[in-house]
Amino acid sequence: MNNIPSVFWLIPIASIVALGMAWFFFRSMMKEDEGTDRMKEIAEHVRKGAMAYLKQQYKVVTMVFVVLAIVFSFMAYVLKVQNPWVPFAFLTGGLFSGLAGFFGMKTATYASARTANGARTGLDKGLKIAFRSGAVMGLVVVGLGLLDIAIWFVALNAFYDGEATALVTITTTMLTFGMGASTQALFARVGGGIYTKAADVGADLVGKVEANIPEDDPRNPATIADNVGDNVGDVAGMGADLYESYCGSILSTAALGATAFAMNADMQLRAVIAPMVIAAIGIFLSLIGIFLVRTKEGATMKELLHSLGLGTNVSAALIAVATFIILYLLGIENWLGLSFSVISGLVAGVVIGQATEYYTSHSYAPTQKIAEASQTGPATVIIKGIGTGMISTMIPVVTISVAIMLSYLCANGFDMSLSAKSISTGLYGIGIAAVGMLSTLGITLATDAYGPIADNAGGNAEMSGLGKEIRERTDALDALGNTTAATGKGFAIGSAALTALALLASYIEEIKIAMVRAVENGKQYFDAAGNIFDPTNATTIDFIEFFQVNLINPKVLVGAFLGAMAAFLFCGLTMDAVGRAAESMVQEVRRQFREIKGILEGKATPDYGRCVEISTRSAQREMLIPSLLAIIIPIVVGLVLGVAGVLGLLTGGLAAGFTLAVFMSNSGGAWDNAKKMIEEGHFEGKGSENHKATIVGDTVGDPFKDTSGPSLNILIKLMSMVSIVMAGLTIAFL
Amino acid sequence: MNNIPSVFWLIPIASIVALGMAWFFFRSMMKEDEGTDRMKEIAEHVRKGAMAYLKQQYKVVTMVFVVLAIVFSFMAYVLKVQNPWVPFAFLTGGLFSGLAGFFGMKTATYASARTANGARTGLDKGLKIAFRSGAVMGLVVVGLGLLDIAIWFVALNAFYDGEATALVTITTTMLTFGMGASTQALFARVGGGIYTKAADVGADLVGKVEANIPEDDPRNPATIADNVGDNVGDVAGMGADLYESYCGSILSTAALGATAFAMNADMQLRAVIAPMVIAAIGIFLSLIGIFLVRTKEGATMKELLHSLGLGTNVSAALIAVATFIILYLLGIENWLGLSFSVISGLVAGVVIGQATEYYTSHSYAPTQKIAEASQTGPATVIIKGIGTGMISTMIPVVTISVAIMLSYLCANGFDMSLSAKSISTGLYGIGIAAVGMLSTLGITLATDAYGPIADNAGGNAEMSGLGKEIRERTDALDALGNTTAATGKGFAIGSAALTALALLASYIEEIKIAMVRAVENGKQYFDAAGNIFDPTNATTIDFIEFFQVNLINPKVLVGAFLGAMAAFLFCGLTMDAVGRAAESMVQEVRRQFREIKGILEGKATPDYGRCVEISTRSAQREMLIPSLLAIIIPIVVGLVLGVAGVLGLLTGGLAAGFTLAVFMSNSGGAWDNAKKMIEEGHFEGKGSENHKATIVGDTVGDPFKDTSGPSLNILIKLMSMVSIVMAGLTIAFL
Repeated sequence: MNNIPSVFWLIPIASIVALGMAWFFFRSMMKEDEGTDRMKEIAEHVRKGAMAYLKQQYKVVTMVFVVLAIVFSFMAYVLKVQNPWVPFAFLTGGLFSGLAGFFGMKTATYASARTANGARTGLDKGLKIAFRSGAVMGLVVVGLGLLDIAIWFVALNAFYDGEATALVTITTTMLTFGMGASTQALFARVGGGIYTKAADVGADLVGKVEANIPEDDPRNPATIADNVGDNVGDVAGMGADLYESYCGSILSTAALGATAFAMNADMQLRAVIAPMVIAAIGIFLSLIGIFLVRTKEGATMKELLHSLGLGTNVSAALIAVATFIILYLLGIENWLGLSFSVISGLVAGVVIGQATEYYTSHSYAPTQKIAEASQTGPATVIIKGIGTGMISTMIPVVTISVAIMLSYLCANGFDMSLSAKSISTGLYGIGIAAVGMLSTLGITLATDAYGPIADNAGGNAEMSGLGKEIRERTDALDALGNTTAATGKGFAIGSAALTALALLASYIEEIKIAMVRAVENGKQYFDAAGNIFDPTNATTIDFIEFFQVNLINPKVLVGAFLGAMAAFLFCGLTMDAVGRAAESMVQEVRRQFREIKGILEGKATPDYGRCVEISTRSAQREMLIPSLLAIIIPIVVGLVLGVAGVLGLLTGGLAAGFTLAVFMSNSGGAWDNAKKMIEEGHFEGKGSENHKATIVGDTVGDPFKDTSGPSLNILIKLMSMVSIVMAGLTIAFL
Repeated sequence: MNNIPSVFWLIPIASIVALGMAWFFFRSMMKEDEGTDRMKEIAEHVRKGAMAYLKQQYKVVTMVFVVLAIVFSFMAYVLKVQNPWVPFAFLTGGLFSGLAGFFGMKTATYASARTANGARTGLDKGLKIAFRSGAVMGLVVVGLGLLDIAIWFVALNAFYDGEATALVTITTTMLTFGMGASTQALFARVGGGIYTKAADVGADLVGKVEANIPEDDPRNPATIADNVGDNVGDVAGMGADLYESYCGSILSTAALGATAFAMNADMQLRAVIAPMVIAAIGIFLSLIGIFLVRTKEGATMKELLHSLGLGTNVSAALIAVATFIILYLLGIENWLGLSFSVISGLVAGVVIGQATEYYTSHSYAPTQKIAEASQTGPATVIIKGIGTGMISTMIPVVTISVAIMLSYLCANGFDMSLSAKSISTGLYGIGIAAVGMLSTLGITLATDAYGPIADNAGGNAEMSGLGKEIRERTDALDALGNTTAATGKGFAIGSAALTALALLASYIEEIKIAMVRAVENGKQYFDAAGNIFDPTNATTIDFIEFFQVNLINPKVLVGAFLGAMAAFLFCGLTMDAVGRAAESMVQEVRRQFREIKGILEGKATPDYGRCVEISTRSAQREMLIPSLLAIIIPIVVGLVLGVAGVLGLLTGGLAAGFTLAVFMSNSGGAWDNAKKMIEEGHFEGKGSENHKATIVGDTVGDPFKDTSGPSLNILIKLMSMVSIVMAGLTIAFL
């Protein structure tokens, strides 16, 4: 253990501080009053529904994990094509991700009524309760993520102590714990996404459009399910997504660092722990940001945005400065260039967030034009929204492209020679840019998780019949949440793209290790010319040439086609699932209006439980096929088209999936806000035909922005993860 | 000239036969009676509008061509980075494509009233007039295409007679005439697509939805513009698109053949003319098919489909058999394997067509489910339609993937070694598969062009107040056209994908030629290790390695991102353009209803001309930005990211663009037919709320299936073409 430098211990310390602060915020939130009996009752309904769903979902996920763990054990112990620690790493990745979702959601469901009640005292009180409860999620995610990383690093380090290639083995093994996080995240995003939108679309279609009752009206049987959905989709789903990006980026960067600096054991260790240290410092700086978030009574939207922005921006600025110091003190080679790699990731995150806001906020022309198009009916609202979403892909894609090039070139001293050294340090730069983007996740995720809490607080206030003034306050908090949700989504997609790219690069390292293992077990490989290929001392470019991973190889081209198709197919299946689930919800709500007399007059209580049950059942049923597909496609492509096909698949899937995700999220966000703009009184306002046209847009946008779009984040990461874990199998069939 | 084998002369003969038969069909159509005065008058309106539009469009296109020709001349004569024939080849490509569009559209606008009048005699008469007029388009496209190819081949052959690398120079020079065809096709597709959908969406939104008058009602001021749109979008646009795929596939295959068999001058010549001969024989076999299309009175939809299917299937079956004979008689190396490559292209075309029909016809579950979703309103119709379209990408992508692998492997004897020989013959196989798919274009395009003629005939019958029986006949003809349009679109996309892939492969050849030229002019290239790189005897793999076109090169990855983005951005811009153009149309129609008293009572004639003008102006204005972008993006990427970046761009653009095109076309087709299904009386039928919900779907689908989706076909081909033509410039900046 004496080879672990003392700076490493910052990592478990930071994770424990994060978890401790999360506990502190949770306790102080729980001490707040939950309000009137009615408020408590509603919160209890939502809490029960959410926990019932999570229980159900975790059951299914557990089964999938058991099956996969058996497969991995078979690969590790029988076929011997995988590191023996992999099944365990996989399981802890899933477990910790599941725990983070559980804690985050538990906090959120306790916080909503308390936020509504806090809003009775004042806006600042409401904001603080909601935001700090959101921070619980953020801190739990980063805390558990770093804790899991620290534990595995120490354990594997003790186990492989003294081996020459120890750090490469350790980091690539740890990478597979990302596969566990990915798998659990996929189910959380897809299942949660289907749940929340089935309920939301169903509630809107019958409630707002047919029965003409407002959102969150207690007379709507699907209201509770809708509020539950916010928690399971936006809190648990988003948390699992970013937990995965967070761990994935740190682990893949560590793996890339182990390769890049393999020639110098000391430098190698520094490169491996650098991303972890940056993340650890990021936790402390996030905490500073979290404490900065506060507001005053009667704050305008702009002031509210400013107070949230202050927290995130201060954290981001501090980490930018801190990076230079960390990398300098770590004494890492080319610390200055690498710091600029981190900065390029950070800046890319900010630019993508800003672009997302521009295209989805009704303070700007694109969304205003969508609202304007409502004057010619729902069809033009949809056409305009889709057009806007597609156009909005430009800035994020160009930004990510520039960030990729810059982080690569800064890290290797602007060397485009593609020598072994320049590639590996360049790729390490891309990885560390992703780490930079995600280092302040503690606070950025807090602003994300804040959204559904504020939304639920509004629902609670509405259903409990709190006064107009209180509801205005919760409305303000909710509106703030919508904006942060949009930028948060842009951030989630951007970080997923960089992480996926780092994983793609790690895949080749994993193939290398698998081949070395196979050669040690007596296998021989021959290149195109018939000569023996020895993987032991081969460089990345040697592998690329051995597997002919170039754009004239039809396997690569076909792989790219299949990757793009996988993204669309996955989206199509999830859209379809929401459509089907929403339809059963609509039928149920209509049935209740018809059969339970007096609901619409407010004299009878609707059967909320039945709607919660329908959402739960639909989500469980519908999430399986798309999720399994995401796991199966890379395996099949690997077996049929080999390494070249897999890299084509990952590239095609990443390029098309990232663009598709931006398009869907932004179209959805813009439709949502175009509707809000009309509700604020523009273009004839609430209740007009124009309003109805934008409701159609908003309803279509729901699965765009909350189911299919965000699920793509996981898809692009998971396909890489599956390929990494299956590398041994792909190689075995060579 | 004595080195041209006699079989070559089949090619100009076939093209002259095609043009002669087109003239014959045109004359016999013109001899038919155009019907009542009212029918003539309406036809005259449409004809004038269409010609006025074409004139306007050709003006803009001419300007673009002049500018580009100057640029190419500068490159050829001043910078000397391009073959001196290129500016001329470019211009004839554009000219012939423009001519094909002109003749096709002229015929179509003369045929519609005659078809309607023919339907007064009987269904068979109507079908024959419409179909044979469609065949004029099909025959003109293949005739002019082959003629242009034959002329250039003879001329360049005489010029370069005796040079060792003559055939490589000739074929790669001819390839750039495809750039002319591509550029003209882009404007035709984008401009025509915006025109037709601005008119269609505008007419529907005010006419059907607001004023509650049926389609093609003479009281609707946008009706004439709508009918004009069918001609400029679906006839001229589709014709230019396929003219380009046709020439592009033949030319790129010839270029790939010249490289693949460069070691054997005799075999090289055979490989170069093989695709042209297959296309020539395809013309004769298409004619047989065209004569087979007939039907009997009172034919059901199934029988009508059968009679069209008979023509295309017989032609396809005959060309399958003929290919074996042609390639055997040509004595080409591995003729049997190559024949199977052709078969794989043909079969892929049929499978994609069938899959398109399954996903878009209301005889099958997917579209029926969309119609069913109308019971829960327009939002679920849209969600379901988008889901269906995305899911529908699976079969076409897998089919094209299998066709790529099979045609590659059949052509090179199942050799995956990526040796110079195996790559070049394999790529030749992919090219010839595209030729196989397009060899019966004479008849497949006839069935495509038939659609808008029948549609216009229906419009004419409706506006002229012909009896119910006649309109039932024209409705039957029109419905048939909708189905053929859907399969035709699938076919157009599939062939575009294969053609683009062949072009992508040709790009590397073009780079090679550009580098050899540069070296001859004294330039030196150095590889990563600093050694001199001599392009003269380098193989394809040498180039790939020199430019590092592999998936670990960040330039390639960034290129792929930008390619996917280009597809989305282009779609977004065209969607947006349709939205804007439709809105001005809606405003105009509303204005006429308001200001011209008595329109809705049928007492006053609307100002059709004003609507035609609005469509024309909007289309001209809106087509420029997306079109120029398609030309500029590959140039900029070439200059900034070099060859590796361009190949990444083309791959990303192709994979994402193809998938996106299938999605958009199929969603649009399915929405259209879901509406038709309700109009046939299902789910409460015409005029119900369900019907209105599907009209929203149909309206959104219009730009999906007729503007953005099909324009992507051109985008993926044009980006390759631009890269090919700009290869010299890209290399100059190395």
